Formats: sequence, C-alpha cells, structure tokens
Amino acid sequence: MVDPFESTDSVRSAAPLRYMQTAVFPEPLRLRHGGTLPGVEVAYETYGTLDENRSNAVLICHAVTGDSHPARHDEDDDPGWWEGLVGPGKAVDTDRFFVICSNVLGGCRGTTGPGTINPATGMPYGSEFPLVTVEDIVDVQKKLVDLLGVKRLHAVVGGSLGGHQVLSWATRHPDCVGTAVVIAASARLTAQAIAFDVVGRNAIQTDPQFHGGQYYGTGEHPRTGLALARMLGHITYLSSDAMTRKFDLDRHAPRDIVTDFEKRFSVGSYLAYQGKQFVGRFDANSYVAITLAMDNFDLGDTRERRLESFRAAKCDWLVISFSSDWLFPPSQSRELVALMTTLGQPVSYCEIDTDGGHDSFLLRKDIEQFAPLVEAKLGARKPRPPREAREDDRILDLIPPGSSVLDLGCGEGDLLARLQARGAPLLCGVEVSTALIAATMQHGIDAIDYDLNVGLPEFTDDRFDYVVLSSTLQAVPNVEHLLEEALRVGRRAIVGFTNFAHQTLREMFGLEGRAPKAPGPYSYEWYNTPNRRFPSIQDMLDLCEKMGVTVEDARYYDDTQDRIIGDDEDPNLAAETALLVLRKP
Amino acid sequence: MVDPFESTDSVRSAAPLRYMQTAVFPEPLRLRHGGTLPGVEVAYETYGTLDENRSNAVLICHAVTGDSHPARHDEDDDPGWWEGLVGPGKAVDTDRFFVICSNVLGGCRGTTGPGTINPATGMPYGSEFPLVTVEDIVDVQKKLVDLLGVKRLHAVVGGSLGGHQVLSWATRHPDCVGTAVVIAASARLTAQAIAFDVVGRNAIQTDPQFHGGQYYGTGEHPRTGLALARMLGHITYLSSDAMTRKFDLDRHAPRDIVTDFEKRFSVGSYLAYQGKQFVGRFDANSYVAITLAMDNFDLGDTRERRLESFRAAKCDWLVISFSSDWLFPPSQSRELVALMTTLGQPVSYCEIDTDGGHDSFLLRKDIEQFAPLVEAKLGARKPRPPREAREDDRILDLIPPGSSVLDLGCGEGDLLARLQARGAPLLCGVEVSTALIAATMQHGIDAIDYDLNVGLPEFTDDRFDYVVLSSTLQAVPNVEHLLEEALRVGRRAIVGFTNFAHQTLREMFGLEGRAPKAPGPYSYEWYNTPNRRFPSIQDMLDLCEKMGVTVEDARYYDDTQDRIIGDDEDPNLAAETALLVLRKP
Repeated sequence: MVDPFESTDSVRSAAPLRYMQTAVFPEPLRLRHGGTLPGVEVAYETYGTLDENRSNAVLICHAVTGDSHPARHDEDDDPGWWEGLVGPGKAVDTDRFFVICSNVLGGCRGTTGPGTINPATGMPYGSEFPLVTVEDIVDVQKKLVDLLGVKRLHAVVGGSLGGHQVLSWATRHPDCVGTAVVIAASARLTAQAIAFDVVGRNAIQTDPQFHGGQYYGTGEHPRTGLALARMLGHITYLSSDAMTRKFDLDRHAPRDIVTDFEKRFSVGSYLAYQGKQFVGRFDANSYVAITLAMDNFDLGDTRERRLESFRAAKCDWLVISFSSDWLFPPSQSRELVALMTTLGQPVSYCEIDTDGGHDSFLLRKDIEQFAPLVEAKLGARKPRPPREAREDDRILDLIPPGSSVLDLGCGEGDLLARLQARGAPLLCGVEVSTALIAATMQHGIDAIDYDLNVGLPEFTDDRFDYVVLSSTLQAVPNVEHLLEEALRVGRRAIVGFTNFAHQTLREMFGLEGRAPKAPGPYSYEWYNTPNRRFPSIQDMLDLCEKMGVTVEDARYYDDTQDRIIGDDEDPNLAAETALLVLRKP
Repeated sequence: MVDPFESTDSVRSAAPLRYMQTAVFPEPLRLRHGGTLPGVEVAYETYGTLDENRSNAVLICHAVTGDSHPARHDEDDDPGWWEGLVGPGKAVDTDRFFVICSNVLGGCRGTTGPGTINPATGMPYGSEFPLVTVEDIVDVQKKLVDLLGVKRLHAVVGGSLGGHQVLSWATRHPDCVGTAVVIAASARLTAQAIAFDVVGRNAIQTDPQFHGGQYYGTGEHPRTGLALARMLGHITYLSSDAMTRKFDLDRHAPRDIVTDFEKRFSVGSYLAYQGKQFVGRFDANSYVAITLAMDNFDLGDTRERRLESFRAAKCDWLVISFSSDWLFPPSQSRELVALMTTLGQPVSYCEIDTDGGHDSFLLRKDIEQFAPLVEAKLGARKPRPPREAREDDRILDLIPPGSSVLDLGCGEGDLLARLQARGAPLLCGVEVSTALIAATMQHGIDAIDYDLNVGLPEFTDDRFDYVVLSSTLQAVPNVEHLLEEALRVGRRAIVGFTNFAHQTLREMFGLEGRAPKAPGPYSYEWYNTPNRRFPSIQDMLDLCEKMGVTVEDARYYDDTQDRIIGDDEDPNLAAETALLVLRKP
C-alpha cells in the first residue's frame, strides 16, 4: 500500500525477512529483574564480510519498533529502516565492515519475546514473559556477537532505544566496544517521555481484547489500544513545526482512510493510518515489553551515579542529537557529553539542525546531515591535507610538539590537523556548525558542538596543555568566564586577537572621531560587526593582571608588513594583532 | 480526598455549586454547523453588583473542563478554579465589578449538553447532541449577558478555551466588549495540539462502554477512555521541566494509588490519579463535544484571513502567554498581537516566565505574576506619579504635545506617563520584563513584550508620530534594521545615545590605548559591558547619510556640566550624549 503521508514508518512491513538468520542459545538466561528464560533464539542479519583479524564488525541497534533489517541486501530485497546510513559505500560501509543487526529480546520479529512458545506450557508466554531490560537486550546481543566470532566490535551504532543499547554496551562490555555512536538518546528518559509511554501501555492493557496479555489464539488482540499507543507515539516522534508543515494547510480535509477512528482533521487521518499500519505488523505484548525496557533504562538518578555508570567505558564516543527532538532533547545529549568529558573520555558531539523531531534519526534528509560524522568516526577515508594559514603558523610556533590542545572555534580543524601531523596525545575542537564539526572529524580529530557564549564543555582541570582562542574572544559576551575556563581546563591558553589600539585605528577614532574599524578579515562597520568586544593589547594585559593571570609569552605582529614588532616599539600602538600565552595564577 | 500530588485539578469536585443559577432560553438555537437545539439552559454564577450604568460587568470564560465557579462566594463556599484572580480586592475585583461566569454550551455542569434530556425523545442527547463551536458557546453567553441587562461588557477574560471565547466575543460582538483579556490561547490550535485531542477522543469513542455515545442509563460509561484522554491532557498541560521537578527524584516510587492502570513510575501513579479523579466529575460526551469545539476553532488558515477575522474588533486587548506553554506556545500569542498591531488595535502583551506549562493560567504562583497586568488593564487603581529624569526632560522638549509616541525600551513607562499627562492620542511602550510591562500598564498605557533584537512589533507604517530609542541602539546587533523599522512605524525617530568619541574617551583610547569607557550609568569595562555598539556622533550621522535618513534636529549635551553644546563647538568631541530627531527619506 502506498503511504499517503510519506511517513518514515511506511517502509516497514510485516513481511518475512529473507536474509534473516536465527541463532539458538539453549542455556537458561537469567534476567536482571529476576526472571529466567529457559533459552533464547535471536533473529539477525549480517552484511559484508568479517576480516581476518575479526576487527571490522559493526553492530547496529534498532529502536522500539525496528527489526534486524536496517538495509537491503540486494536490489530485490525490501528496503531497511536505516537505508540511508548502512550499505555499500555508505557511512556504515558494508564493503568495509561486517555489519550485524539483531531483533531485540522481547521483540516480535524473530527473537524470543512474549509471542514465543513457552516450552514449560506449550503456549505463548503472553503476560508470563518476564520483565526485560536494555541490559538483558544487550547481553543477548553479546551472545550473538560471541557466536559470530567477534571479540571486539569496531563500533556499535544506534538511535533512540538503539542509543540506549549502545550506552549499555559501552558501559557493561567496555573491552568489546571500539567506537560507540549514540544518536537521539539519553542516560534516562524524561518524566514526560515516560508519561507518554504509560498512557500508551494503559491504552493497550485496558483494551478488552488484551485479555491480560493472553490474547494469542483467541482470534483477538488489542488492536484498538495498540493503535492508540502508536498514534500517541507518532505525535512524540514529530516536532510541532513538522506537524504544522505536514497538516496545517489542509487541516480540515482528512485523507479518506478506512478506519473506525475519528475522521476529522488531516492530522487525525494520519494518526488513524499510522495506527492501522502498526497493528498489522507489531505485537502488543512486545510493544509493552520494549517500551518498559526503555522507560526502566536508567544510568543513574544523580550526576554522581551517572558518572559511576560511565566510568568503565573505554570507547571512543560520537553523540548526535536533533534540535527539534523534544522526546530526547539535545540537553540530554549534552549531558551525556558532559559525563564523558568529565571522565576524560574521547567524544565528538553534534546537534543537527532540523525540524524533523525525534524521527530525524530515520529521515533521509537528516541522515544526510549526520552520516559524514558517523563515517568519520568509524574510520575516515584519507583526509584532505590541512590548509595552512599565517595565524596558525604563528600559533604552531608557540606550542611544543607532543602537547595536548583544545581549539575553541576550531573551524575546519586545520590547526588541529597540523598539530596532529607533528604528534599530539590529545586534540579536540569546539565549534557550532555541523559542517565544521564534520570537517574537523574527517581529520580523525574529535569536535564538540558547544556554544562558547555558555562556556566550555565540562573538561577536567588541566586536561589540555594548551587551549587556543584564536579570533574568538572578541565575539563573546563572557570574556572573563571564558578565559577562566580556558585556564582551568588548560595549563596554558593562547589568545590571538586584533589590537584595537593600533595606530591607524587610534587615528580613526582620535582624530576623525569615528569608531575604529579593524583591517583585514575582521573589518566591519560599527553597526554590523559580529564583534562585541574591542580590546587593545593594553586592555587585555590589564585584564590578565586583574585576573592574576601570568603572561608567559607575547608576540605582536604588524600584519600589513608581515613582521614581528621589535622590542624597541610600543606594541599597543604598532601591532595589528597579538598572540599571548597565558598561564593560570 | 487529599490530592497526593498537589495538582491544580484537585480543587475541582463534582459537588453541586451552591450559588449556581440557571437561565432558560426556550427559543430554538440554530448552531453554526447546521444543527438546532430546541432551547437551552445556562448555568451561571455572579459576583458583586451591577452598577447603575450597567458598565461594570466582567465575563469570565472557562477552559475545557471548568465550570461556572471561578471563585468562592463566601468563606464557607468551595474554592473556585480562578481563586487567585477573582474575588474582593483581587485583579478581577468583585468589590468593583459585576462578575459573570457561565458553564459552556455542551458542558456537563448545568448548561445544556450531551447529558441533557432531549425533549423530542425524553432521553439524554448523547451522540445526538449537535456539533457545537466556540461561536455557539459565545452566542449562548451573549443571551445570558443580555438577560442580565448588560449591553456592553467592561471586560471579557479567559484562558485556553476561555481565551478562544474571548477572541470570539471581541470579533463577533465588537460593540459589547470593552476590554478583552486573552490568556494562553491562539487564533487556531497547532496541528500537534489537535493531534493530542484526536487521540483522547479516539480513546473515549473506542471504549466499549461508550456505546456510540448512548451510555446514559446503561450503568456504564467510558471511564477507561475518558481517563486515558485526561492522562494525555495532563501531560500536555505541564512542561517537561515541571514534570522532571515533580516526578524525577523518586521516579521509580509510584504513590500507592488504587487503580486498574499501570502501577509503575511516580508519574504513572500521578496520571492514574488524575484520570480517576476526572471520570468522577466529568461526562465523556461533554469532553468530546468541548474538545471538538476547541479543535474546530479557527480564525483563519492564512494571515490575510486571520486579519479579516480581527478587523471588526473594537476592544482594548491584553494578551498573556507562558514561556513553557508548548500546547499554546508564546509564538501563537505573539502572532495574535501582530494581527492586532497590524490592524492598529490597542494591545498590551506579556510572556510570563515560568516552568508551569499551559497549566500556568491556573497556577497561583503564575497568577501572582500576571494578575497585575489584568488589574491594570481592567482599570488601574490610581497610578504612581511618573519619575522625572533629565534624559526624559530633553526628549519631552523635542516632542510636541498631542503626538503619538512609541517608546522602545520604555522601562517603567515614566516618559510615556509624562507624555500622557500632556495629552497624547496614542502611546505604547516596548519592554522585555514582566515587572516593567506591569509598571507601564499601571499608568494605563499599553506595553508590549518584544525582543528588539528581533525587530519591532508589526505596527503599520506611520502609526506613530515619534518612535523613541533612548539608550537602546548600543545594545542591539541589528542597528540598521531597528532604525529602518523605527522610521517605518514612526514619522520621526528620536535616538538618544552616548557619544563614544567624546574628548575624554578619545584621550583614553588615543593616548592611553585603552578601550573607551563611557561615563555615567553606562560605564562598564570592555569585557563586561552589555553594549555591543560604540558609535560616535559622527558615526551615527554617517549611518543616517548612508541610509538616506534626514537629521531634522540634533541636540548635543555636556552632561558633566549639564549644558547644551554650543554652535561654536565640535559636538563629536565635546558632547557626552546626543539626541537626534530623524525623519525617513
């Protein structure tokens, strides 16, 4: 059936998965909350070939209603739910990686779940199916990965509940995970997100056709309750702006859908359609089981406990969020990143700008945005050579090879890449644009999406030998705070800035009485400059003195003549730009 | 029963309303969507006394599940749903006003609704009850107001669906409304808000005990479906932050509630409790009827059609929104304000900063914030005398009495109040803080909550004789745009600013090489000033020339010596501050 709404859900069907395999683990499985399963079967698919070292395996983890089929295996195969990300030549490149994806424990697409026959009774488990957790789901995946001969996964990648599985893998099986890609997830759900799931489960479990979960074989199942739960889910997957875009122009003209549900409003017909599609392909008990696993996922109710959960991880992280995702808002992803940086774990982070809401992790247009980040993190193709720039040459001259460096406002990562070429134990950039973060990551260097107007990511004290602020300070409101933070996380800070008391600017102001206008690339009019701070060299030195900061080195430049200001000159008059090396008190 | 969650809903009960009266209108009522009711009864309460001129009546409009009882009538009476706003000495002062509140058409608290006996059948209407609209609800209220002898309401006040009723009153019965107070409402619901209602109605209407709406007398009613709808509603009434605050510390410790619903998570027990409370006091058919009225409320699908809807209004508006309201987000209220300003209708607007979500209009702590705005708009107590300031003296000197003025960054409205004292056809302020907006409104002058970094409210061209920007320009990024806008909506703009090329500042910069620091109240260090633009008089004159703006008058001041700079002096060197009167090209 053609989806009249072009929704992400439309590619899913209940058709058998042609390339699905099944692994059988006959030994009893003790579950985290106390139940036991006499044995489990796991439905999975693989793509590509495991290399000789068994080092190229990538595990894909699916979300609540996904399955083991993220991508088609050949042209005749049905499309998968992550077709834009997984496949030959794609970010998760099946020509390079051995890709594994399995249906979760508790599911209804081949892996043991509530619809499976309980060998003790000869009947489906139904409500007898024990409570499963994300940890149980991951432990079953671990059995599969072991069976496939993989000791250590090159990467684990997942969005939403898939992201929770990635977090669980990285913290429970730290020796088995090289890179962890956590998309649109969190350390625990918001109370609001749990509340929506509670209402959905209540709709299912109060449906008279639920029969306390033992509806198998009755000819009935709680299709109304499950459809209601799915409708509600769909609202939370979309942003309000996206719903407006999709349904507002013709809001009073619903599509002519065959349904027992309300037939008003175009958004109503969409929900009815989604509900109907879903009940044809998903089991209500599985929906209850898997949403409960997600709601119970909890890496700690306090920051301290969450830090404790993350402490064991040894992987390289990539965290991705979506600006309009209100089910797993970017603030939750930033909190994950803060835990990782606090623990000194390598992490890249990017918030993708989109109106797609939580669904973005499945939307082709948004996958196009974040795929380069995943590709870079999974082991980049040969990066482009870094561009050289005079300002960077000067900074490189001040940093001894082998130093760890944080570059605030790292642009495309050219300075960091040049530092890397000289050898560096730890490099990281901070930027605000997806394109610049992707460009930096393509050098194999971590970059974090962070607004310097807020401050710095939560690195530990003295994490870096040098923190570079090159042409950055003049655009932030919180100069003192940013300097303090730079000198907290770095042993030294290198601050590059335009000297607004340069002779030509003084003349402009002193004689002409016009606001000084810096030369070169930072030349704007007073009324349209992005800059908001206009310090002279002396101003900056005064501030350092006030803050008790030691100026360890200072280089002053006449950029027009490309020369260093000599000792016999007054730099505050003669220099166009300055580089100060600062050390904390 | 004591509410274990201290929720806003706990004050509501199904107890009979002791002061409720009933008005009977036996004539047939034709409804907007084609149905007819053979007659209607309206349940209402009144407070205070109608004055001789019948000019002090205030109509209160309730939200989806409210009733005719906004406040207690005496100490023994049950508290009402708007106790913080309505009562003796309160913002809607029952000592001054004759307050009317009626239960809406379609309701279940005394006014004709689906549970009323249909005289044609002798049975309750049930699903035979015709589709009602907000317009129908208001037309029935109009009958009541007529019956009470009120030709023109001093004010109509309402939040949420109550706000929709206010909008409908003002646009359908323009001669009957003096002041309209629209709280947490919109010209039409978002697609997302409709979607939540659709799911709620589907839960009710698919409940087997709904019996197609004809459940009266069966001993059953769709309590499960209605409870589900209410749970869902409650999620949308709270902000995510408020839910976190209420339910996150003990998320795995639900209250011990007697319920058939899921017993996990503290937020789950809250929803179960709210659902149960609600089904005991509300009728499912009324819930369906009233939410449908709200979802169908639509003042136009395009801006042009919405303008057409608002064109007839003759009232004085107050619009209030809540920062964390995502069901009726502040952007929708700003859009209402834009329609009003575009049409030249007098309006005050304020966005209350709160984490209370949509519920804020009922929360005591938030009522405390917005009550002063309502009180001021309904006819202030005697305002405090305006404070005099030298800068204002100078501006007053430039504005002929009888001019209309918009003050951008109006503070507490002192300049505007002094202009008012001299006589002015139209005055308005723009500010960003609730306290400053309330202070301005206490003078009986409109103030609009608007971020000048975005621009100006959508006033029509030449709406004001003068637009004042006093010590404002230096703090905005978009100087040109703001000046353009000021000269669009005003015939003239008066721009007051500090001259950063004043002699002492030039010396500071030219000789000392330090960033100039303005004297007086705008004196900050370069690294912590809220200012981001540092123009000299010459800079500003240059910009005017570039923009083709005529400088009609210019006053230059030596503030230290409190004297006007003479013609023989160079103002760009001698003046500390300047006032320019600008006229558009």
